[in-house]
Amino acid sequence: MADSTVNKTADIFNKTRLDALLNRRFFYAPAFEIYGGVAGLYDYGPPGSALQANIIAEWRRHFIIEEHMLELDTTIITPAPVFETSGHVARFADWMVKDTKTGDVLRADHLVKGVLEARLAGDKEARGLIAQPVKEDEKKRKKKIKSTAVKLEEEVVNEYESILAQLDNYSGPDLGDLCRKYKITNPDTNNEVGEPQQFNLMFASSIGPTGQHPGYLRPETAQGHFLNFSRLLEFNNGRIPFASAHIGKSFRNEISPRAGLLRVREFTMAEIEHYVDPEDKTHERFDEVRDVWLALLDRDVQTSGRSEVRDMTVGAAVDGGVIANQTLGYFLARIQQFLVKIGVNPSRLRFRQHMGNEMAHYATDCWDAEIHNSSGWTECVGCADRAAYDLSVHSAKTGHQLVARQALKEAIVTERLVPEFNKKTIGKTFGRDCAGLQKAVDALSEEELARLQGELGQGWTVVCVEGKEFTLTSEHVSVERKVFKQSIREYTPNVIEPSFGLGRILYILLEHNFWTREQDVERGVLSLPPIIAPTKVLIVPLSSKEEFVPLVREVSLKLRKAGIYSRVDDSNTSIGKRYARNDELGTPFGVTLDFASVQNRTMTLRERDTTSQLIGNIDEVITVVTDLVEGNIDWAGACKLLSAYDGVQAVE
Amino acid sequence: MADSTVNKTADIFNKTRLDALLNRRFFYAPAFEIYGGVAGLYDYGPPGSALQANIIAEWRRHFIIEEHMLELDTTIITPAPVFETSGHVARFADWMVKDTKTGDVLRADHLVKGVLEARLAGDKEARGLIAQPVKEDEKKRKKKIKSTAVKLEEEVVNEYESILAQLDNYSGPDLGDLCRKYKITNPDTNNEVGEPQQFNLMFASSIGPTGQHPGYLRPETAQGHFLNFSRLLEFNNGRIPFASAHIGKSFRNEISPRAGLLRVREFTMAEIEHYVDPEDKTHERFDEVRDVWLALLDRDVQTSGRSEVRDMTVGAAVDGGVIANQTLGYFLARIQQFLVKIGVNPSRLRFRQHMGNEMAHYATDCWDAEIHNSSGWTECVGCADRAAYDLSVHSAKTGHQLVARQALKEAIVTERLVPEFNKKTIGKTFGRDCAGLQKAVDALSEEELARLQGELGQGWTVVCVEGKEFTLTSEHVSVERKVFKQSIREYTPNVIEPSFGLGRILYILLEHNFWTREQDVERGVLSLPPIIAPTKVLIVPLSSKEEFVPLVREVSLKLRKAGIYSRVDDSNTSIGKRYARNDELGTPFGVTLDFASVQNRTMTLRERDTTSQLIGNIDEVITVVTDLVEGNIDWAGACKLLSAYDGVQAVE
Repeated sequence: MADSTVNKTADIFNKTRLDALLNRRFFYAPAFEIYGGVAGLYDYGPPGSALQANIIAEWRRHFIIEEHMLELDTTIITPAPVFETSGHVARFADWMVKDTKTGDVLRADHLVKGVLEARLAGDKEARGLIAQPVKEDEKKRKKKIKSTAVKLEEEVVNEYESILAQLDNYSGPDLGDLCRKYKITNPDTNNEVGEPQQFNLMFASSIGPTGQHPGYLRPETAQGHFLNFSRLLEFNNGRIPFASAHIGKSFRNEISPRAGLLRVREFTMAEIEHYVDPEDKTHERFDEVRDVWLALLDRDVQTSGRSEVRDMTVGAAVDGGVIANQTLGYFLARIQQFLVKIGVNPSRLRFRQHMGNEMAHYATDCWDAEIHNSSGWTECVGCADRAAYDLSVHSAKTGHQLVARQALKEAIVTERLVPEFNKKTIGKTFGRDCAGLQKAVDALSEEELARLQGELGQGWTVVCVEGKEFTLTSEHVSVERKVFKQSIREYTPNVIEPSFGLGRILYILLEHNFWTREQDVERGVLSLPPIIAPTKVLIVPLSSKEEFVPLVREVSLKLRKAGIYSRVDDSNTSIGKRYARNDELGTPFGVTLDFASVQNRTMTLRERDTTSQLIGNIDEVITVVTDLVEGNIDWAGACKLLSAYDGVQAVE
Repeated sequence: MADSTVNKTADIFNKTRLDALLNRRFFYAPAFEIYGGVAGLYDYGPPGSALQANIIAEWRRHFIIEEHMLELDTTIITPAPVFETSGHVARFADWMVKDTKTGDVLRADHLVKGVLEARLAGDKEARGLIAQPVKEDEKKRKKKIKSTAVKLEEEVVNEYESILAQLDNYSGPDLGDLCRKYKITNPDTNNEVGEPQQFNLMFASSIGPTGQHPGYLRPETAQGHFLNFSRLLEFNNGRIPFASAHIGKSFRNEISPRAGLLRVREFTMAEIEHYVDPEDKTHERFDEVRDVWLALLDRDVQTSGRSEVRDMTVGAAVDGGVIANQTLGYFLARIQQFLVKIGVNPSRLRFRQHMGNEMAHYATDCWDAEIHNSSGWTECVGCADRAAYDLSVHSAKTGHQLVARQALKEAIVTERLVPEFNKKTIGKTFGRDCAGLQKAVDALSEEELARLQGELGQGWTVVCVEGKEFTLTSEHVSVERKVFKQSIREYTPNVIEPSFGLGRILYILLEHNFWTREQDVERGVLSLPPIIAPTKVLIVPLSSKEEFVPLVREVSLKLRKAGIYSRVDDSNTSIGKRYARNDELGTPFGVTLDFASVQNRTMTLRERDTTSQLIGNIDEVITVVTDLVEGNIDWAGACKLLSAYDGVQAVE
């Protein structure tokens, strides 16, 4: 909504003010606050819940309905064998260290990073240098670890910088070595820390009354899709490609979450698993997004130690091999369209490709949609090519074939040598060794079979099974060339997975749309697009006097009938205060009912960002505001349909 | 949708057929099926997810939006102290017994009930009596425990019947006594069972990496509302009454769940907590529901051993004291309206009041909306008056006052006697005993203060503190009559809680709306109302020929623009088969595009329940089907707007 004509305090983002607003208006708050709270758990209040529900509804429209995806709702509680197979029990872990005296627990990589950065900052201070333009995320971390002005050797500075550049590359033991070598201690207590230990991030529980069935809370919804693959494929009449989608909560027992909604222990995800033929990753709607521009930070640029983003169209990126295939490219474009539609600032959005060493254990390629915010660049959507990993491991473990079958237009004809046993004679001759012998012959290569064929032609051959030799003649077996016709192709589909962290997106949306009025920085505004704003229209009667009641009811009812969510504010404060409250809640439009409404059936319409007002007949205004909310017209369009209103009495 | 004009196989409900349909069409399925499944955990497939999403959307409209409730989304993981305070750690449990040899676990009350009922049935068989019209839920249970034809003593029959009638009254030790006395063994193994033990139904886990913070998965969303009460009240500008609402998952580690979606370990709830002044439980919209008829089974009728339902209007029930107050009555009516709107058969719905001994530990009154289904009467919505229980216990535990404040229109003026101490002289005379002495005097009753006043007037008095006597004179203290003016009333609100188990409702809806075509019982139909049907309109091109593609796209787009969710079925099967599939999916309308469509822009419209068809211009049909889906017209109305179509070529 907010455009350049609005008097904003432009680029000065004040996180303290936003946090105060979000807390005051109960967008969200620490869960169990009156019990002292628990790190990484947050409750959403009424505006936060409505915002989340609207984001989910738009996500459902943009992805599930638009693309005819198959929606699922699978369980959170998952028996342990599933995550043993998927690799999460062994590998879904972070390295932690314990304070040797207090027992406090810290994430090892965060500790090393924080301490070394603080020392480098202290070095700059000691040298009397103004620290280089500090990145916002570093600024924040420094609140935690105070730097002291201590000058370092030139050589040490270089070592620290090199360590920081490759931090994601270190194993747990490496991090332990770093702590010892550089005397890194717990900054809160100055105590030494112990050896890094792996900490699995899944919450464990136990299913049923006997305690014999260990389970976990899922850390992602993905496994629930994969286990249902056969049913989904059947529901889709056996056709590939198709996608399943699931919106639901997932859980990660983070070691020490501190970053508000950006790192939490319980969160709502929206995940898509798109199943494709590994030999054909084109997308039938690719042409619709071919010309969409993306800001790409690819693997090669990063590996060479740089970070400049390249602007490319999806078409050019796929054609040039920067993005691996059309389906990945299609989803990156669709992800961008979704994020921008709900209010993310497109100039603060980029797609970063994972480097080899940081990829999850199941992925073969991965792009993150990263959005810039006061903590730096944050991953909000991952878009991974999981290849056939998951379907393959679950097939192998359960024996249930998670495969697709394709009727071949033209059958594939192949010829090969095949051993044909004479069951009678072979059984008679070899008795209980017979099965092992047959198995050994069946397993021979084409080349070996040819040799066998030759030897049998000359009389006999010897086959060795587990150190024991057997003499075969043409009475026992013959080798013949046979023709095979394959009319069905069976394959394990590959999976492209766009995975959204809705809480992160929600928080960053609030940052991108927050500003304060130039005339009064205490007056915050959230310029949320109407599509996701918790309330679309505020109805403001001049007072709670009896005579306004029927009009308020009429306008409420008509808006509800038009499908527009409105709220009435008939509290006893001034109209200006009521609008200010709703600017903070992100309500894009307000209509005021005053004495003129009672007499002439007129109503004023206020736009949140400009605070400008229009006036018209009640029914006209309802039509205009409906079109505004539905995005059929913008405010400039509305100004052509209704008269400007400059009455001072009513508003501000 | 289905009415009496439809050829249904009327009242013969076939659960096996419905279950097969739900499984075949992937409404839901056992979770982790390819790993062998886990009892009480189910995944919803595409039609089940869509059905659930539509039920939730309608619930949100019917309750949250219509009543301006404050929506919340609170965390599932909850630290242990919260449930210690709420009473769940001590009391949210069932009694279980273990098979002494296999260790299998059974719910004690279910075991006693099952075995005694099987013996009574065996007795009837032995006497050559046809068992009395067996209730459907008993029929099902008997599948598990086989009865054998053994005649019982008359006296024993009476004892068994008396035990069954008061089963909910027995404690764990009582159930253990019954097992011993009547030699009740595990029917699967014939082994003895051990002493009943309490099993807490909450799933336990641990928060954070140190293992020092025990937590639980919530068994209800309610505590999340209560802990946020102060923030909610502030958001509502301090006004009472108001309601908070939360749709989300809850978890109960059931001992041995066996009843499909009716008893599961993970489920979606929708809960409302409506906060009222304990001195005023009227509801401002009560008149809107005063004349709604309810089927009530009240406490008194049940206690007297009967079960006949009384039909009453809500108004009469509240006026007559059957329902305790207007707010409870208002919600019972609104619950009924919701259930009927989404497709519950109103003649199979009743409200049953809890008897004293079965009420949850926090409730002072409770009515269950019970819906009849193939398992008997099942609780689907609870509507409890939790009084001030929860807010009080959390206030007491945390010291955070969860109260409301009311500015009194007229201040309450009271007079009472108050002791006034002369701090100087009292301190001098009594030294360190001074504080205890003052406390004792402050605690005196009005009557005692009057006596003190009299004695002081005569010179002196004696006050006894912990066995020690002190002589006070008017130099130390005086007693005076003072006037107090109270302009704010502070109170703990009471809570009325309607709590919906959405999975149970979803399953029962499917039962109530399932039937089979008279001409072919294999052809199942789900007559789901359009409001909740997973897909509203099926678009059926005669074939997948090129020439239909632009028309299919046009109709799809126009329906999407009208906000109607449609799907295209261009699979290679006959149109009849495609419609049959969609009858099973509950799709209420279908439109067919054939060669006439290409030539004349006509389209046929089919109604699911009657299979009758209309024809008209494409745009006309879109308008009509939009009105049908939105409930503006019914099929009879549609028949007046479009021509009947009797073309045989296209359908069935």
